[in-house]
Amino acid sequence: MDGLMTLDRPEEDAPAHAVTGTLYGVGMGPGDPDLLTVKALRVLQRAPVLVHFCKRGRRGNARTIADAILRDPAREMALAYPYTTEIHPEHPDYVAALAAFYDDAAGQLADHLGAGRDVAILSEGDPFFYGSFMHLWRRLKDRFPVEVVPGVTGMSGCWTRAGTPITWGDDVLTVLPATLPEAVLAERLRGTDAAVVMKLGRHLPKVRAALAAAGLLARAVYVERGTMAGERVIPLDRKPDDEAPYFSMVLVPGEGRRP
Amino acid sequence: MDGLMTLDRPEEDAPAHAVTGTLYGVGMGPGDPDLLTVKALRVLQRAPVLVHFCKRGRRGNARTIADAILRDPAREMALAYPYTTEIHPEHPDYVAALAAFYDDAAGQLADHLGAGRDVAILSEGDPFFYGSFMHLWRRLKDRFPVEVVPGVTGMSGCWTRAGTPITWGDDVLTVLPATLPEAVLAERLRGTDAAVVMKLGRHLPKVRAALAAAGLLARAVYVERGTMAGERVIPLDRKPDDEAPYFSMVLVPGEGRRP
Ligand SMILES: C[S@@+](CC[C@H](N)C(=O)[O-])C[C@H]1O[C@@H](n2cnc3c(N)ncnc32)[C@H](O)[C@@H]1O
Ligand SMILES: C[S@@+](CC[C@H](N)C(=O)[O-])C[C@H]1O[C@@H](n2cnc3c(N)ncnc32)[C@H](O)[C@@H]1O
Repeated sequence: MDGLMTLDRPEEDAPAHAVTGTLYGVGMGPGDPDLLTVKALRVLQRAPVLVHFCKRGRRGNARTIADAILRDPAREMALAYPYTTEIHPEHPDYVAALAAFYDDAAGQLADHLGAGRDVAILSEGDPFFYGSFMHLWRRLKDRFPVEVVPGVTGMSGCWTRAGTPITWGDDVLTVLPATLPEAVLAERLRGTDAAVVMKLGRHLPKVRAALAAAGLLARAVYVERGTMAGERVIPLDRKPDDEAPYFSMVLVPGEGRRP
Repeated sequence: MDGLMTLDRPEEDAPAHAVTGTLYGVGMGPGDPDLLTVKALRVLQRAPVLVHFCKRGRRGNARTIADAILRDPAREMALAYPYTTEIHPEHPDYVAALAAFYDDAAGQLADHLGAGRDVAILSEGDPFFYGSFMHLWRRLKDRFPVEVVPGVTGMSGCWTRAGTPITWGDDVLTVLPATLPEAVLAERLRGTDAAVVMKLGRHLPKVRAALAAAGLLARAVYVERGTMAGERVIPLDRKPDDEAPYFSMVLVPGEGRRP
């Protein structure tokens, strides 16, 4: 069991400061807890304060990934988003409410950090890739030491489970949030070799139309909850409905050079 | 040490077949061995045949990542690329030589797999993202059981070490191989919010020109050997020369919505 050695270095990552705690952004990977990194496990085992985002009354997905590891509720802190129903994210009320929510959350974390307690924020996938963590990071990074632990992204988990390489040779990959207008999606899709469309939810009909306009519908694969319980993988043109949860994406695998 | 439990399930991942071995593509992450996943560690500890790609006379980078874990040379198999100097990848001689190399390698692996031995191919970053593994996968996937273990990509490692989120809100991310013509690079860069330019090497002067044409040079960050020994992070416009090793990339962080 040679490899386990890397887990047994308690002196590594020890905070270099005496007074304040370190803010950790911990990449939790796509869903399967075995896709946590050794470094993420180590931080999760040690940090006295473990933070996850959630919708009011529900558990966050990043927290669910940690189920096998975390057993001490006294270390945990849940940050519940101000809205459970979806309001358009460009709406000024929504932006203001979110900003207040992040300000307040950053204040709570600052209290822990200021008291010398390390705080680990559990982040789905990779923390610096469309992560909510980034909004707390932005508010706290100039006041406290920060360490980010990169993670396997949701998209890597999804193309792995779809059983298809995403890019070959000189393929260009474009990652698009489904929240963009249909015309923008179609234009970006037209100019790419491979694509990932994230944040599907209620935007699936629009994404379908944009893929069709770009001539990519027949190559698109729908992946729901990749590597998690309840996973589904299906060619998009065989998916009978337009239901898509938040944890779903569309992949268009590239077809580049294959010597 | 609750989290270590996930490493102690020998029955999981057991091959479902009696006769042939399983082909594993193992994502090795960006460089730091602590960024291996729990699942990757488990496969590396168990597979009787561990394969890595390298240039003739050198060690492959994926193999270097595994240094802390692998101690048994009898399990190892190195696949040396046919060329050490760079020939243009579009050149027919190069394509033919590579194809023969992959055919021959696939034949060697098929012998192991056919004899019931699992084979793990060590893949830098994530195996299905521009990985050499894909060329062996393509040749073997219809004859043997395959399992891919996704990994933290090189780009996640690089933006983490650069200390910058790559995408916010509705940002579009474009991933470009530096091997593309300058005009193509410039055009794709013009239409994106965030970018990653991979496979830099001798293409850095061209990439600089394309970034300048797209008005993105001032936002570009150069990262060499992210998370590995010899790491360098520097704003591209402050990098005095055009030297770039194979393990380097340019990042253009997005500047999207930040409530
Ligand atoms: C706010 S983004 C966060 C992305 C995350 N930081 C990452 O690195 O994957 C959330 C989106 O990621 C995608 N996603 C993440 N993990 C996924 C999974 N396991 N299966 C399907 N989609 C996933 C979905 O499109 C979801 O709407
Ligand atoms: C053939 S691609 C393989 C990509 C790999 N499968 C991944 O998921 O990152 C090789 C390119 O990845 C990039 N790369 C991978 N790891 C890197 C690292 N740690 N630092 C800098 N660049 C890296 C470089 O641009 C390199 O030319």
